[in-house]
Amino acid sequence: MNFASDNAAPVAPEILDAIAQANVGFAPGYGDDEWSRAVERRLSEIFEREVAAFLVPTGTAANALALAHLTPAWGVVFCHAESHIATAECGAPEFFGGGLKLCGLSGAGGKIAAADLAAALAGYGGHGPHQMTAATLSLTQASEAGTVYRIDEVTALCAIAHDHALAVHMDGARLANALVHLETTPAHATWLAGVDVLSFGLTKAGALAAEAVVFFDPARAVCMPERRKRAGHLLSKHRFLAAQFTAMLAQGRWLELAGHANAMARRLAERLTAVHLAPVWPVEANLVFVALPRRLEAWLKAAGARYYVRPSAGVAPGDRVLVRLVTSFATQEDEIDRFVDLCKNFLAQAPP
Amino acid sequence: MNFASDNAAPVAPEILDAIAQANVGFAPGYGDDEWSRAVERRLSEIFEREVAAFLVPTGTAANALALAHLTPAWGVVFCHAESHIATAECGAPEFFGGGLKLCGLSGAGGKIAAADLAAALAGYGGHGPHQMTAATLSLTQASEAGTVYRIDEVTALCAIAHDHALAVHMDGARLANALVHLETTPAHATWLAGVDVLSFGLTKAGALAAEAVVFFDPARAVCMPERRKRAGHLLSKHRFLAAQFTAMLAQGRWLELAGHANAMARRLAERLTAVHLAPVWPVEANLVFVALPRRLEAWLKAAGARYYVRPSAGVAPGDRVLVRLVTSFATQEDEIDRFVDLCKNFLAQAPP
Amino acid sequence: MNFASDNAAPVAPEILDAIAQANVGFAPGYGDDEWSRAVERRLSEIFEREVAAFLVPTGTAANALALAHLTPAWGVVFCHAESHIATAECGAPEFFGGGLKLCGLSGAGGKIAAADLAAALAGYGGHGPHQMTAATLSLTQASEAGTVYRIDEVTALCAIAHDHALAVHMDGARLANALVHLETTPAHATWLAGVDVLSFGLTKAGALAAEAVVFFDPARAVCMPERRKRAGHLLSKHRFLAAQFTAMLAQGRWLELAGHANAMARRLAERLTAVHLAPVWPVEANLVFVALPRRLEAWLKAAGARYYVRPSAGVAPGDRVLVRLVTSFATQEDEIDRFVDLCKNFLAQAPP
Amino acid sequence: MNFASDNAAPVAPEILDAIAQANVGFAPGYGDDEWSRAVERRLSEIFEREVAAFLVPTGTAANALALAHLTPAWGVVFCHAESHIATAECGAPEFFGGGLKLCGLSGAGGKIAAADLAAALAGYGGHGPHQMTAATLSLTQASEAGTVYRIDEVTALCAIAHDHALAVHMDGARLANALVHLETTPAHATWLAGVDVLSFGLTKAGALAAEAVVFFDPARAVCMPERRKRAGHLLSKHRFLAAQFTAMLAQGRWLELAGHANAMARRLAERLTAVHLAPVWPVEANLVFVALPRRLEAWLKAAGARYYVRPSAGVAPGDRVLVRLVTSFATQEDEIDRFVDLCKNFLAQAPP
Repeated sequence: MNFASDNAAPVAPEILDAIAQANVGFAPGYGDDEWSRAVERRLSEIFEREVAAFLVPTGTAANALALAHLTPAWGVVFCHAESHIATAECGAPEFFGGGLKLCGLSGAGGKIAAADLAAALAGYGGHGPHQMTAATLSLTQASEAGTVYRIDEVTALCAIAHDHALAVHMDGARLANALVHLETTPAHATWLAGVDVLSFGLTKAGALAAEAVVFFDPARAVCMPERRKRAGHLLSKHRFLAAQFTAMLAQGRWLELAGHANAMARRLAERLTAVHLAPVWPVEANLVFVALPRRLEAWLKAAGARYYVRPSAGVAPGDRVLVRLVTSFATQEDEIDRFVDLCKNFLAQAPP
Repeated sequence: MNFASDNAAPVAPEILDAIAQANVGFAPGYGDDEWSRAVERRLSEIFEREVAAFLVPTGTAANALALAHLTPAWGVVFCHAESHIATAECGAPEFFGGGLKLCGLSGAGGKIAAADLAAALAGYGGHGPHQMTAATLSLTQASEAGTVYRIDEVTALCAIAHDHALAVHMDGARLANALVHLETTPAHATWLAGVDVLSFGLTKAGALAAEAVVFFDPARAVCMPERRKRAGHLLSKHRFLAAQFTAMLAQGRWLELAGHANAMARRLAERLTAVHLAPVWPVEANLVFVALPRRLEAWLKAAGARYYVRPSAGVAPGDRVLVRLVTSFATQEDEIDRFVDLCKNFLAQAPP
Repeated sequence: MNFASDNAAPVAPEILDAIAQANVGFAPGYGDDEWSRAVERRLSEIFEREVAAFLVPTGTAANALALAHLTPAWGVVFCHAESHIATAECGAPEFFGGGLKLCGLSGAGGKIAAADLAAALAGYGGHGPHQMTAATLSLTQASEAGTVYRIDEVTALCAIAHDHALAVHMDGARLANALVHLETTPAHATWLAGVDVLSFGLTKAGALAAEAVVFFDPARAVCMPERRKRAGHLLSKHRFLAAQFTAMLAQGRWLELAGHANAMARRLAERLTAVHLAPVWPVEANLVFVALPRRLEAWLKAAGARYYVRPSAGVAPGDRVLVRLVTSFATQEDEIDRFVDLCKNFLAQAPP
Repeated sequence: MNFASDNAAPVAPEILDAIAQANVGFAPGYGDDEWSRAVERRLSEIFEREVAAFLVPTGTAANALALAHLTPAWGVVFCHAESHIATAECGAPEFFGGGLKLCGLSGAGGKIAAADLAAALAGYGGHGPHQMTAATLSLTQASEAGTVYRIDEVTALCAIAHDHALAVHMDGARLANALVHLETTPAHATWLAGVDVLSFGLTKAGALAAEAVVFFDPARAVCMPERRKRAGHLLSKHRFLAAQFTAMLAQGRWLELAGHANAMARRLAERLTAVHLAPVWPVEANLVFVALPRRLEAWLKAAGARYYVRPSAGVAPGDRVLVRLVTSFATQEDEIDRFVDLCKNFLAQAPP
């Protein structure tokens, strides 16, 4: 019953196979190899447009490199107040960006509302150089709350951003989960909706450590090689990073794996709802947030369930604890059933 | 005949096995797992002292994080002018260090001479705050020229550094090669000689991507977790980084692999010497530098040999090209023999 | 009728006299002169404790240097959401601090409430190294809203900060105005209440360009000389910076000048109140915020009044404009009377 | 007998007059005033071309802001190894530039030779992204050794720089002294010779604190206002900075003052030569470097002479001390005569 994180999951078997298959003799280092070039071509196919892609080993690196590339040091990045870049990267965007500022917008269910973005932007401009410059919008898809922006929502947010000359970044650490939910193509979910640069993550989907900064306008990537290198994120034996992408992107394997994770989350949500523990936000990806009675939560932990408790964020009443349950490609139905059965049995004996 | 780099080599089979063996079920992310804890204990055994170790995926990350941790932003790092940190990391130490300065010292065969360090330090102090502060010494062991500092040389350099209140960092991307040459223990080669912090590299030795910043005084590592995280170098599925260390450090496998690489370099050096192409610097690790006649060099390249040409650095006459040949755990004797035979045949027909 | 800013005011005559008096022959540069040493002694007298002081030409420099000195690059500075450091310094604290983060707390009348600080701090700790570290509290005294923290309020906030191992910085760009209001000593308003480092500003009080970072624990100032120098804020002809401090601090001249500014603000507030335009926040320093009917505001501007319009911040109804009126040592009673008469006459003819 | 520095000199009287004259009533802050606008127009006249100018209080700020603006964080600035930016600004260029690197070129008499620049540049390119990018050339005019680049030398260096796509910065802390020596116009000495951005210093010439970053192509200055502001170098009462420029630039006063300083240096050089203490480098500006016998140097110091001793730099024999003597607008002939008489008398009694 490990629902702690998609990072707690193992690696999909095909990833290890792909790494082993790339381990044949010598190959140029630092990305100047056939595997790496093939990945860039493959990403261009998948996104239906020529892209420039920079593979890195962590999502924090992808996000921070992307944001630093798009934002001057005196620039502001607008993001959700609870986004990963704002709360869980120890200031990586600020560090890579030479002191840029994140402006965290609140928003129900982990999503920024267009009106809130517009209102925040209205406060910028006209007070330079005293005020920092509005520069970039960063959207997390799927969001940290397990919700997914609809395509029209992304489009509207990007339009507002572009109207104010902002660049748009998407943190796609869980892009696969979002695509499965949206039943749309990678192109429609990103650049066709207005996204300029994507952090494209496959680690949470099942890779070992495989993330990429994807530029939908390759011309915008000038000097990105230097930026990645001086951050220590250009891997020497780069082919093994590339091989992970190849394996995941073959025959839509990344979407299959994400589909399983999403299905497990839905199952968990449905069964929790059935025992009167409905999730607090719509379950659209692989995250389920539920407000548990405190005694139940203690009981589950004692029974060996693994998950993180989150600040209540106003959605959990005082006598309840907000719990985040994450599913992954490796989550099994019986774990879910066992978890919900524990809840059910506890509540039968000790109704809240 | 691939002598381009130890990074062009594949991964040792036991590394892939270890990764596969770690791929069992769920485990906490970000280093809070059994594999990661075991590595820190194992490193403490190997260095015969309690250490704090921070695993990262690249040598550039290890170096830059270590130097930034030891050096204030207004500090100077003394290093060899041709060291990796000074020439091949695109300014990573300066970036991570908030604008610190590298002071490159020249020195025969890639090694800093004690007298040169002392002379450089004599120019610091007494002119603050206008002048930057002498803060850190960084030694590369084995050096970029394929030479190895003797223990007494390291000891003398560290003593000078400590007398001036400098910290000492060692870039040990090829520490294994140096240890094999020195026939000494990791402890004697590092902290017993005065090294404070080590970049401990296993990637060049045969791992996929496995480097560590090792603090011989764990108290000195305060805030290093934050520093690594905000640089994007804390891997989420950290156990797979740890597993590589475990595999390499088991039964001295890292030293065995380095021993092979060193032996191949020696063989190459000896056979080149036999055809009157003696290396320009002592061959003490896995790097062989040789000044080739220009036409021979073109011939070798056309014949498929892979290596890098380096600036002559005053050791190659005008009609010759300085060539760097790197061996690795994967280098085979027959590649060496074939390469030297090509040289021999060419020179027989067209003596320089 | 210039109420734009205390920075729009001229320089007090004694400042120019002091500069002229310091202009006698040669003197060592960069602060190694008698004038500069005397200022540090004088500040120690005024604060009734040995201090270390670093003179700089701007308040932004003082704030950013102080915050960067107290806060690691992965640290969070808690401040009021509308504070100068958060809204009007173009990211200087983030830049000097290598990417530190400002966490802006809301609070009525420009002041942080102790409960809000405590609540914000409750969210930190236990999630490292993913989350940034709570590091510093910055209080603005007098506040940007023209209010003044009472001594017991400062004491309570500092106590909370210190309980959480935070350092406390005070932005004292208008410290003189606060002291006059509080009728207390510099010592009681700062270190006796728990402040660790002060940005001590005299420019707004009437100097040409004279600010200082004051450390109440001189030991904490280690490396501050290097920090100031590399930021370009160590003036070469430093005696002319020091002379301004000497002039202002002689016989309490700085407090006299601030007393005049405060009195003018009170007069303005009282007379505005009399015409039913009461200020929106208590007028305790030299700033008056008033919500003017839009047509009156346009009329005043056309009549030559100078001031800034501010975002309504929820205190100005939709048909009104929030106007900031700043008085200074140079403000004359007749300007105030003329301004209020304009309001009165307009309202008599066109009541809101 | 104060030859310590042009920064040890007082302020020219007309500077104080100008500051007093600007002290009339209220004026907008932060450079939005008539005095500031007039300075930009005046600089455009003097340089015979529309320029964008950013006034700052220190030369370090001007240099560091200019270099950071021209150079990416992964870029290299080529400068003389003994230049002020490399030795006396505590890493300000590296700090402002986010970790850029200075590459110090040696060169006789403080000047970079065209061949040396070309040789250094030959080592760049083709090794990216591992190697930093050659980005900027910084020339110091007059040089730290008191020599002056001839116009054709500047032209040749700029041409090499531009051929390699480098920007050219000139550190003109002593530009006035150079212009007087060259008997040329500001335009010919700068942009007509290829300089892109100038640090234009008037403090050493006699101002209180008055430096500017001058862009000869105003379009290149985009975002420079933000860069200056967030560095804390936008003065609030900016008119008093502007007034200094106005006073110095009126009727060529800056050149007159520099002319006096140069004449005093020439007199010092000639008289020292007459007593067999010829300067070690050509005296072309207001700096005289002379290798004094150690006992004479001690004698002079005891007699009250003020100056700095510099590292011998290979030009002072072992029994001599390299002394730097700086003249300024305030240097009087009798000081020079007294100093040389002391030398003469000492040598008469104790010949070296």
